[in-house]
Amino acid sequence: MSQENTNQKFDVVIIGGGPAGLSAAIYTARDRLNTLLIEKSLIGGMINEADKVDNYPGFPEGVSGMHLTQKMHEQAQKYGLQEATSEVLCISALPPHGFGVKTADDEYTAKVVIIAGGSDKQRLNIPGEKEFTGRGVSYCATCDAPFYREKTVAVIGGGNSALYEALHLSKFASKVYIIHRREQLRATTVMQERTRAETKIEFILSTVAEAVQGEHFVEKLLLKNVSSQQTSELMLDGIFASIGIIPNTAYLKNLLALDESGMIVVDGHMQSSIPGIFAAGDIRHNSIRQVIAASGDGAVAALSAKRWVEER
Amino acid sequence: MSQENTNQKFDVVIIGGGPAGLSAAIYTARDRLNTLLIEKSLIGGMINEADKVDNYPGFPEGVSGMHLTQKMHEQAQKYGLQEATSEVLCISALPPHGFGVKTADDEYTAKVVIIAGGSDKQRLNIPGEKEFTGRGVSYCATCDAPFYREKTVAVIGGGNSALYEALHLSKFASKVYIIHRREQLRATTVMQERTRAETKIEFILSTVAEAVQGEHFVEKLLLKNVSSQQTSELMLDGIFASIGIIPNTAYLKNLLALDESGMIVVDGHMQSSIPGIFAAGDIRHNSIRQVIAASGDGAVAALSAKRWVEER
Repeated sequence: MSQENTNQKFDVVIIGGGPAGLSAAIYTARDRLNTLLIEKSLIGGMINEADKVDNYPGFPEGVSGMHLTQKMHEQAQKYGLQEATSEVLCISALPPHGFGVKTADDEYTAKVVIIAGGSDKQRLNIPGEKEFTGRGVSYCATCDAPFYREKTVAVIGGGNSALYEALHLSKFASKVYIIHRREQLRATTVMQERTRAETKIEFILSTVAEAVQGEHFVEKLLLKNVSSQQTSELMLDGIFASIGIIPNTAYLKNLLALDESGMIVVDGHMQSSIPGIFAAGDIRHNSIRQVIAASGDGAVAALSAKRWVEER
Repeated sequence: MSQENTNQKFDVVIIGGGPAGLSAAIYTARDRLNTLLIEKSLIGGMINEADKVDNYPGFPEGVSGMHLTQKMHEQAQKYGLQEATSEVLCISALPPHGFGVKTADDEYTAKVVIIAGGSDKQRLNIPGEKEFTGRGVSYCATCDAPFYREKTVAVIGGGNSALYEALHLSKFASKVYIIHRREQLRATTVMQERTRAETKIEFILSTVAEAVQGEHFVEKLLLKNVSSQQTSELMLDGIFASIGIIPNTAYLKNLLALDESGMIVVDGHMQSSIPGIFAAGDIRHNSIRQVIAASGDGAVAALSAKRWVEER
């Protein structure tokens, strides 16, 4: 819980309570570093939306995202993790070694900071999307494709990622539509050729999705052709939105090196461009956006952070 | 099971059945890539030796190394993983794209190879060491230090790693000896100063360990001073060997770029110096040698491998 007008000192401040942040917390708290984890909303992060995670090694029967992150949370708490619920507004350097972390409610100092604030998939922002997320609307084919065996699905997007998602889905689904708002795809020629060669895949171009509808689960997608303005309905079982990623790094722009997508640039030790600030999980450059990889990152960042503290 | 005199074709051959290899297998097999995992002895690898793993996120009560890897194995098998028990002798390039993998029993071809053969801690090779491994003899302070609260332990070794292990142990144990065969330590001056400043730590130099003794658990270490040849006994509860690491890469020397320790050099996608050959886990350069990080590596290597196959 945050307290007003205090200035609390920690060895490690971790920003973000998803798998990367929780894994880092398990490591630093267990290593007896005085650790604060700051999460702006619910512990667990985006993976909480997943009804079933089948590919986190160690759970052969699958595990719900929320259950998995609850277990991780419990594990970090066992080692004395402290927590605050607030949004981080600013990180500042406190020479010679150390950082100030200002949230909407409080201020803290830390010897090292691990940023694990994740990234959000760009939402479609259409009616029904939020309601059916986890019940037919997905943002990750790698995660959810096997649940759509012999089903009809659509991928929304026109970049390489969207085409990869469609190709991956075509190994499971009986039919895959690719819906893109323009006539031309952004994806590379090679990827376009490979996608067009797959008979299960059909393109619906110059078309935008306007609404998701269904009873308990997704049943149809309302479409509008942007040239003719004509509307139509597409019956389907699943919708995969692949229109971009937004890392939670707006407040870091003037502090750290970010890549062209706004992800934090790190080295192999998860160190950012500022020594003493580390990043882990979906918020860092080149993340594969999988729970197991984010958790691995968290451990790497934690051990790097520990070494950094010990060497000073 | 291996079969003689066949030449079997796979999309992916994974070498090594520890957490990195099993995690990669879960990903590639679930993604419907025809996957063979080759393990020379027991599935699970070095972590099987750990009675309790406390820091694999998702298991707040801890989990035995063997139980965890059995779960991972079961998970990969669910998706149709194929397996062979044999030692890999050679990997060769098969132009234009592909590889031959020759084991002691068989030959296979693969579009991509993921090398996850792990590394072994250099053993002390003294009587009692093997018998008490997991019962007082350990090769990883990060893993096992919390089990030695208020106990007496010794670290054997004189490099930076040994001193880090000793400092880490000093947060838990009541007494930490550092035993090194030479009069001078190999560790950096900074690390030596920091270690000497810790009152719980005591150095025993120019001394080698000759035998581990105890009833059910480690009780004492027999020592010999290499200058005076005098022998002595040290009563303790735990022994941490930190005298080096041996990656299982001898057969790769003429094929791939290895670092000065023999670890496989990889980029952020876990690709080795040869496109189409990936590495994951303790066998790769800069690994932190933790189950969660090795498992994360496995997923990264698997998705890179998948993309490599799809783009060809």
